[in-house]
Amino acid sequence: MSVEMVQWLDDSESLGVRERRFDLHRGERRVPGVLWTPRGAAGTRPLVILGHGASGNKHQDYVLSTARRLVRHYGFAAAAIDGPVHGDRRHSGPADSRAVFLHFAQVWSSDEQMTDEMVADYVATLDALQSLDSIGAGGVGWWGLSMGTILGLPFVAAEPRVRAAVLGLMGVAGPTRARIEADAHKIACPVLFLVQWDDELFARDAAFELFDALGSKDKRLHAAPGTHGALPEEAFEESERFLAKCLGPGPWT
Amino acid sequence: MSVEMVQWLDDSESLGVRERRFDLHRGERRVPGVLWTPRGAAGTRPLVILGHGASGNKHQDYVLSTARRLVRHYGFAAAAIDGPVHGDRRHSGPADSRAVFLHFAQVWSSDEQMTDEMVADYVATLDALQSLDSIGAGGVGWWGLSMGTILGLPFVAAEPRVRAAVLGLMGVAGPTRARIEADAHKIACPVLFLVQWDDELFARDAAFELFDALGSKDKRLHAAPGTHGALPEEAFEESERFLAKCLGPGPWT
Repeated sequence: MSVEMVQWLDDSESLGVRERRFDLHRGERRVPGVLWTPRGAAGTRPLVILGHGASGNKHQDYVLSTARRLVRHYGFAAAAIDGPVHGDRRHSGPADSRAVFLHFAQVWSSDEQMTDEMVADYVATLDALQSLDSIGAGGVGWWGLSMGTILGLPFVAAEPRVRAAVLGLMGVAGPTRARIEADAHKIACPVLFLVQWDDELFARDAAFELFDALGSKDKRLHAAPGTHGALPEEAFEESERFLAKCLGPGPWT
Repeated sequence: MSVEMVQWLDDSESLGVRERRFDLHRGERRVPGVLWTPRGAAGTRPLVILGHGASGNKHQDYVLSTARRLVRHYGFAAAAIDGPVHGDRRHSGPADSRAVFLHFAQVWSSDEQMTDEMVADYVATLDALQSLDSIGAGGVGWWGLSMGTILGLPFVAAEPRVRAAVLGLMGVAGPTRARIEADAHKIACPVLFLVQWDDELFARDAAFELFDALGSKDKRLHAAPGTHGALPEEAFEESERFLAKCLGPGPWT
């Protein structure tokens, strides 16, 4: 994958954070993404790729705020791409969040290539972004919960450049449970695994099973009361601190 | 309880931390303790009371290092007292750690007053130390795992001055399990609950049951791989950060 296949769509800046939307073309496949870097960034720095949850998109509130904090607090780069049938990949059908959620559940159940295609999208995105002078071959982190773990855990397992991963709000569950469990065993990098104690979508025991399955020796599980969608602010702070500790707090200029 | 019942035994200083051993006399009962404060401390500050684990004592490595870090990093005061049949309360019998452990297990099973007496010791210690000008009526924190939760959780439940507690390495288990569970329901302050994923002394499920039983709305569970005694350094860092956030990071002078 070469940088020539990236088409930059816009370029803006807010409070020291530069934001650029792009389309990455991988064969016939268009991968819509967004990149955040510090204003005036030059030289190698860690890159964190963020995977959004089902019914969200690459630019939803918590993806944007987490990305911006990683850029502003640590000088990291951050990037996100839309998931399958989400965001700018959504060409038809209702955009209502429940409809998107249901659509994803259907694709998850029926499309055996979905995971592999998303892993390939992430690898291509990483290749393209690391070819930029302002990113280079720095450490790579992953942050993705729920659907961001369904799709991100296989990416982390497949990609040796990933040196730290925040995963969770998911268990050994769902149509791809065997794949998820097998991939979990392959993961060796440090992991922060987040659990919501009263998760109504993925049972606590299934989440514990997934934490158990992670091959990483350096892993920790943080749980807080509340439902699937009620992740506390503290979990974001811990995510940020964990990634910074693993990837190096900088300063990156 | 008045300060006149405290007998100060010594007074030393190392790297900015003043350390004073004391005996608190509560009726016929002698409570051996140690207090750490910043050098030259004057005025109100938070106080964290630390409970050691079975076979340890008030001055063992992790109690001392945690206390010193709270003093040096945040300007807090910290204190610890020996548990029943531990440290300077140990008048007879072998001092070998396994023998002390077994002795505690026997007392835990047979002495129905043990918990109440230790709670009274902690309340008296808190009264005495808060009467000092260099501590005063600041926020109070608890840190105690394993035996430090067996004895400390009832103290936290009984003492409204405690505003934050680090508990864990324990479950709804053992001779006082009913008391522990009932007291857990009464706790309302923020709690950080630590679990070792492969704890061979207290089953993971029993630990989860205790976390569930905590009445606090603001609680979080942090788990790491490893056995009962293999608490990672990160757990101490998180304890410190949690207590500082809840009690106020200062500066306390």
